[in-house]
Amino acid sequence: MKSILVLGAGLSSSSLIRYLLENSSENNWKIKVVDQNIDLVKQKINNHPNGEALSFDALSADERKPEIEKADLVVSMLPARFHMEIAKDCLALKTNLITPSYISPEMKALHEEAIEAGVIFMNEIGVDPGIDHMSAMRIIDEIKAKNGNLHRFISFCGGLVAPEYDNNPWNYKFTWNPRNVVIAGQGAAACYQEENEYKYIPYNKLFNRLDNISIPNYGDFEGYANRDSLSYRSIYGLEKIPTIYRGTLRRPGFCKAWDFLVDLGLTEDNYKMTNSENLTPRSLLNAFLPYRTDITVEEKFKQYLGHHADLFPKFEWLGLFDGSEKIGIENASPAQLLQKILVKKWSLDKDDRDMLVMYHEFEFLLNGKRKQITSYMVNKGEENVYTAMSNTVGLPVAICAKMILNGTIQLKGVHLPIHKEIYNPILDELAAYGIEFIESEIELN
Amino acid sequence: MKSILVLGAGLSSSSLIRYLLENSSENNWKIKVVDQNIDLVKQKINNHPNGEALSFDALSADERKPEIEKADLVVSMLPARFHMEIAKDCLALKTNLITPSYISPEMKALHEEAIEAGVIFMNEIGVDPGIDHMSAMRIIDEIKAKNGNLHRFISFCGGLVAPEYDNNPWNYKFTWNPRNVVIAGQGAAACYQEENEYKYIPYNKLFNRLDNISIPNYGDFEGYANRDSLSYRSIYGLEKIPTIYRGTLRRPGFCKAWDFLVDLGLTEDNYKMTNSENLTPRSLLNAFLPYRTDITVEEKFKQYLGHHADLFPKFEWLGLFDGSEKIGIENASPAQLLQKILVKKWSLDKDDRDMLVMYHEFEFLLNGKRKQITSYMVNKGEENVYTAMSNTVGLPVAICAKMILNGTIQLKGVHLPIHKEIYNPILDELAAYGIEFIESEIELN
Repeated sequence: MKSILVLGAGLSSSSLIRYLLENSSENNWKIKVVDQNIDLVKQKINNHPNGEALSFDALSADERKPEIEKADLVVSMLPARFHMEIAKDCLALKTNLITPSYISPEMKALHEEAIEAGVIFMNEIGVDPGIDHMSAMRIIDEIKAKNGNLHRFISFCGGLVAPEYDNNPWNYKFTWNPRNVVIAGQGAAACYQEENEYKYIPYNKLFNRLDNISIPNYGDFEGYANRDSLSYRSIYGLEKIPTIYRGTLRRPGFCKAWDFLVDLGLTEDNYKMTNSENLTPRSLLNAFLPYRTDITVEEKFKQYLGHHADLFPKFEWLGLFDGSEKIGIENASPAQLLQKILVKKWSLDKDDRDMLVMYHEFEFLLNGKRKQITSYMVNKGEENVYTAMSNTVGLPVAICAKMILNGTIQLKGVHLPIHKEIYNPILDELAAYGIEFIESEIELN
Repeated sequence: MKSILVLGAGLSSSSLIRYLLENSSENNWKIKVVDQNIDLVKQKINNHPNGEALSFDALSADERKPEIEKADLVVSMLPARFHMEIAKDCLALKTNLITPSYISPEMKALHEEAIEAGVIFMNEIGVDPGIDHMSAMRIIDEIKAKNGNLHRFISFCGGLVAPEYDNNPWNYKFTWNPRNVVIAGQGAAACYQEENEYKYIPYNKLFNRLDNISIPNYGDFEGYANRDSLSYRSIYGLEKIPTIYRGTLRRPGFCKAWDFLVDLGLTEDNYKMTNSENLTPRSLLNAFLPYRTDITVEEKFKQYLGHHADLFPKFEWLGLFDGSEKIGIENASPAQLLQKILVKKWSLDKDDRDMLVMYHEFEFLLNGKRKQITSYMVNKGEENVYTAMSNTVGLPVAICAKMILNGTIQLKGVHLPIHKEIYNPILDELAAYGIEFIESEIELN
């Protein structure tokens, strides 16, 4: 019997744990799930005979090490900053490791040691990063195999609310960690490459330089640049590609309105506001508007919107002009206060379903002809536990776990899912779960 | 004979060292100056018989401690982040300390220990902070002494080029550390208080929300908000004041143009640009403009300026459209690259003189009448070593040193120059050096 240790039983672990349990008898697996919240673990394991609920602090080395030693494979669903601690234990105890998170330079540096220890550390195998890598690499490798010459690659991903449950003027609900949505894009400027020119977009312009994307049956989306697209050139073996761009999808109109919140300073997280415990949404907003006694906060805000006054109802709907109730966080940053306001309005209702959208576009020269392949995937959640986000993050992780334990993946060392032997079987099995890409090819000119 | 140890012989130490040497015989002082650059020290000491040039690394505890032990007073002109190390030595070795820099919470925390050791650690006694505190507190204390009730205090300071040498379209030259000018305003949003409302201005709006200030004989200036004005309420004993605002002065038109550089992302310092060593000013600028093949960089930039196209000559004058020569810094941030471009154009020429401008405005209620006091100081540099910046930073430090050593200042502990006993004699002596405030009072309404 092989043993899998899952660290973390939060939202994003639901589909992962379900898959592992459902496949446990056939594969002769024992699934141990650890979380400090034992109720959460029990709920996810649901009395499955091959499951075992453990309650301890995965950040305590003393507590986790005996369990890592007993396991054949560890899946770390902890926040990304903790993966390195786990990886070091896995190295010492010769245990395989999977994480859905971005690989860190420190993690990368363990490659040789992991090979020596005879284990694989697979990273970036959720949805974004994860399914984006696999689905893009399948097409890139096919184009390369035909001696096609890639000229342009753009790729978008977004977690949204399914159209049937899209009932607010922002056409958006949180389907993922709200904090990450509020502070998305902060830090280094986004960068990408267009016709061999490097381009940089600072945070204050990020939600203003948009692309438009249409997806058959799902309508229109807009995309803003997602972090460092340049680093994908080497990951995907596209060192000479003239144009590469990765973006995040929202419904049209979202970004322009969000840009006003960014511009005002409401998403800043690098200082605490004086007297924050007494702020209402209205006084929070007003703290970022100029002092005026002759007009109301609403009128000031409309003046601020200028010729975008048509966006006013979006902000009104958020309750930003509500002065009747305190937001109620002591010593809070603007971002923390805004997040609390947004969570009230943008949380998925019990019966809502979310939607994960991914879109790739490849332009290449093949036998003297300019061609374009587009590939997209739209996945809707089953309900509010087995969401599209949970499925698209958890299933590739789970399938990868199976392939490591049954010997389909023989690779050792620190890896991303960019190899044929890995992405092909995973993408094929994901398709059986409805996570499937629809591809079309046209000739340009 | 008393001994003064000056750490750092850079630009800002010139006037300080000159004052100490000129007053050394009368006061029976020995002046030791330390810098790693011995030529700099020798130049500043200029063979004065009471001066001694030392060359060692002031950051090496082993090297500095014997000298701190021998000194009666240490003046640290090192970068602010090093003051704490020096302060701890001064505490252990019972030596007085002066720094012109902002006081840190760690420095503040040494208050009781400094009293016990029988020493004074004086901070924020340059120009801004320094002369601003002293000149404002003199008026605030006078108003309070008359039972006036302060309603509004605004204060501005700026280091500029003297009008006679102001010969560029930005009406600006560097009179201080260029790096601090390029990244000025980054970090936490500026905050102030207006009619009891807290107001916050994020960096991307900082150079867009301006005040206009006129100074007799010196013409018009504009001011942008300087960091955290709220903290001055407790420092100045103005806990209940409805309006308090501190700003930085530039000549009219500077901020709007600078705002475009900020908005583009050219002042960001939190990431390195790919291939930075090959960037020219033109390609640097273009990296932040959208990709277009149909128009030139100049045309793109004009479109970006929109109805501010009149600002175009300012950017052209900076050489931002010059594609003939590489800026030439490897692994550089946008801010580092921009700084190198600006230093070429905004450095003071050999014969240029700088100008330090400070302006306060106080509104208060006295015997039922609303009154306003304005107070301003304009100081021009002697030449390019004994600049206005060097004089206004160095002279208050030097005078304070004298007052500590001759017993005029008897205070012990960690302090700012906000007490009558300190600011009065210093302001009086500064006036003799031409650093003098001109005050006027009017009745409002």
